[in-house]
Amino acid sequence: MASIFSRIIAGEIPSYKVDEDANYYAFLDINPLTEGHTLVVPKQEVDYLFDLDDRTLAGMMLFAKRVARKIERQIECKRVAVVVLGLEVPHAHIHLIPIRSEADVDFRREKLSLSPEALQAIADKLNR
Amino acid sequence: MASIFSRIIAGEIPSYKVDEDANYYAFLDINPLTEGHTLVVPKQEVDYLFDLDDRTLAGMMLFAKRVARKIERQIECKRVAVVVLGLEVPHAHIHLIPIRSEADVDFRREKLSLSPEALQAIADKLNR
Repeated sequence: MASIFSRIIAGEIPSYKVDEDANYYAFLDINPLTEGHTLVVPKQEVDYLFDLDDRTLAGMMLFAKRVARKIERQIECKRVAVVVLGLEVPHAHIHLIPIRSEADVDFRREKLSLSPEALQAIADKLNR
Repeated sequence: MASIFSRIIAGEIPSYKVDEDANYYAFLDINPLTEGHTLVVPKQEVDYLFDLDDRTLAGMMLFAKRVARKIERQIECKRVAVVVLGLEVPHAHIHLIPIRSEADVDFRREKLSLSPEALQAIADKLNR
C-alpha cells in the first residue's frame, strides 16, 4: 500500500504544499512544533533516509535548502533546524523547523494547534 | 578565532575520531544522547548548514551516510537519526544519533556520562 506521503504527493490526501519539483515534495506538518514546520519527502517511496541512493539523498538536501530559504524569508526565526527521526511513517522525510531557540525542537511537547485557515495562510506566505 | 570544531579537526583539541576525508570530519559527541552519537562537520568553517555551497552540502550528506552505515553496523539501533540545530557552536554540524525510539532524540534530557575509556572503545569499534 502506498504510504500516507505517497498519497499526499499523488493528491489523494490534501496537503498544504510548500514546494515541489520532479523528485521531491514539501508540505506543512499539520501538527507543527513551530509555525512553518515543513516536511520534505522524496517522491520515490523509500523508508529509511540512508537507504536512498546517493543522488536522491544529495538532491533531497539541496531541495531542503531551497525550502529552508523560503521559510527563512517568511517566518521569523534564527535558523531552520533539520530533523530526521523516521520511526513512524515508513517514507523518508526531513523535518524543517524554523527555530528561535534549541528548545523549539522537542518532539515530546504539545504540538501547535493551527486551524486549516491558519495553515493555508502559512502555505500561501511560503509560496509567495 | 577558529571554532572549537576547527581546532578539533586541526588536532589542537583531542577527539574520538570516527571518520575523515578531504572535506569532512566525524567524531564522537562527548555528551552523547545515546552510545555512538557522532558529530559530522565540514572542514570549511561555515556557521549555518544552509549557507554551505551546494556541493559541500550535498557531499556532507553523503559523508554522513557513510558514517551512519558504520554506526548501524556496530551499535544496536533501529535507525540513525539526523539532527541539525546549530545555535550553539558557530560551525555547521550534523548530529548522527543511533536510536531505538524517537524519544531517544531529546536534547533536554540528561546526557550519557561516558568515561574516556568507554568513548575510546566506541570510537575503536566504529573504526573497525
